[in-house]
Amino acid sequence: VKVIGIEAIKKALGRVNLMLAIEDGFVAYSQGEAVVPPIADLRFDKPPGEVHIKYGYLKNDDYYVVKIASGFYENSKAGLPSSNGLMLLFSQRTGEPLVLLQDNGLLTDVRTAVAGAIAAKYLAPKAVSRIGILGTGTQARLQLRYLKSLTPCREVLVWGRSELGLERYLKDMTEDDFSLRVALAPRELAETCNLIVTTTPSREPLLFAKDIRPGTHISAIGSDAPGKQELEPAILQKAQRLVVDSLSQCKERGEMAHALRQGLVAEASAVELGHIITGERKGRTAEDQITVADLTGIAVQDIQIAKAVYEALM
Amino acid sequence: VKVIGIEAIKKALGRVNLMLAIEDGFVAYSQGEAVVPPIADLRFDKPPGEVHIKYGYLKNDDYYVVKIASGFYENSKAGLPSSNGLMLLFSQRTGEPLVLLQDNGLLTDVRTAVAGAIAAKYLAPKAVSRIGILGTGTQARLQLRYLKSLTPCREVLVWGRSELGLERYLKDMTEDDFSLRVALAPRELAETCNLIVTTTPSREPLLFAKDIRPGTHISAIGSDAPGKQELEPAILQKAQRLVVDSLSQCKERGEMAHALRQGLVAEASAVELGHIITGERKGRTAEDQITVADLTGIAVQDIQIAKAVYEALM
Repeated sequence: VKVIGIEAIKKALGRVNLMLAIEDGFVAYSQGEAVVPPIADLRFDKPPGEVHIKYGYLKNDDYYVVKIASGFYENSKAGLPSSNGLMLLFSQRTGEPLVLLQDNGLLTDVRTAVAGAIAAKYLAPKAVSRIGILGTGTQARLQLRYLKSLTPCREVLVWGRSELGLERYLKDMTEDDFSLRVALAPRELAETCNLIVTTTPSREPLLFAKDIRPGTHISAIGSDAPGKQELEPAILQKAQRLVVDSLSQCKERGEMAHALRQGLVAEASAVELGHIITGERKGRTAEDQITVADLTGIAVQDIQIAKAVYEALM
Repeated sequence: VKVIGIEAIKKALGRVNLMLAIEDGFVAYSQGEAVVPPIADLRFDKPPGEVHIKYGYLKNDDYYVVKIASGFYENSKAGLPSSNGLMLLFSQRTGEPLVLLQDNGLLTDVRTAVAGAIAAKYLAPKAVSRIGILGTGTQARLQLRYLKSLTPCREVLVWGRSELGLERYLKDMTEDDFSLRVALAPRELAETCNLIVTTTPSREPLLFAKDIRPGTHISAIGSDAPGKQELEPAILQKAQRLVVDSLSQCKERGEMAHALRQGLVAEASAVELGHIITGERKGRTAEDQITVADLTGIAVQDIQIAKAVYEALM
């Protein structure tokens, strides 16, 4: 097996059309063409840590992929990053291992950001007046960067809990040609932005239905595990279009899980992103609609980004 | 991640005490010190293939291990081996990947053979008069080789379905200093051997209770998946001691599964190998007892062999 390190992976990422690759993944998933069994987990006590193994393949494809990602939260005491990750690509024809991508979690971060961009492509209003970002971490950066090719808007309002986080975010994103202001409260984003991306680990609503204006699209990225939540469930009820990456998964761990539990939306009211991409279902049909994309992250994104990087390297 | 190829792995295997490492694994497993979740599987249709992901760790240890093994049975058409396999060793302290052992399944074969040797160590009669081997494949070879250090007996009776397989087996094992004869039927083994190892993929009994003599030990290796079977279940009933590698797993997929279903043995009558090794439970207590070891293969064996190879390489 050839091992590809992070620098070579970064170079390869610059040469691939990730939007296309991951759109194809969402379509295959929604057509039932993806085989993605439940995540396999390991948990550790001393020191605390967790490992997630995601694996799967697209039917009639050349590959299968196994991703092993871990979080060991006391690593920072030793000056090490808390997360580790790698992806293994195998032949679906013979089972042979083809490549180990030692990406340290970068590919997961990127495929998550690309999903946000795809949601914005199909759901954001044509005229984005200002982009609102909740959070100042890795996804807050990447989501904004991957929106660049989709909208000429460079006006950004950001909210975060940490002063230091905000300071760093302003610096980095200003260097990336955005014009940023800091919001005093999440509500400000709802009141003045019509493309909002939520990227925090919050476990309670930060945005409320009464504040969301007509013509707004929200991509909810942070809520990727049971218990996490950034949106008041009434926002999903108020939206004219609720899009999810995976119906089965968002019922368990997305913003949709909260809205379903409260009886505010019906399962049938949500549409999978894969069906929007093919045109089987409509995305935004009017500028004044409210749209929400509930993105929890699915293994087809891992499969597609690993394939794209491997093929760029060959 | 450093990748270690098959030749370096073979060299490292010569420098490690596998019996000790894998005995420790069985003990940890039976003491509840091993975390080994259910196997994760992928299946493929075109061409047919299957992938098994086994993973786990021992508590208070330094490592965790993920093994990815595949079988693609049409590979032989292209002159490729049907099975592929690799093991990844990670730090249990930080999550960091330490090594990828690209062993192509060798370590699985070896850890399976070593388990047979451990069972013989605790259960075989003191005076082995003749060793009986059912099957002529990889395990039929390795089991015999790993018995060498446990008994001075070099007399072997082998039975197999394939003439060519028998011919090759005789040649290879004779070179390995054994003195072999071919049995016309499995019954001959029961009648003339007091240490028997069964290694076939049979789905119906090959050995029957009426033929098994007092003072015989049988290690049943072939039955590692639901439906597989080499022993008439009455043999387990007749045995004075029934030993399993994993009670929970043998209930599902070992020889014990068949005997349980027919009500011939009680779950409580089986003893885990780990409890025999520690002396908490007794193995053979008299030369004329019949003993059976039902070995289905557990992930601690993978963990222990991967660790042993890694530490020998460091």
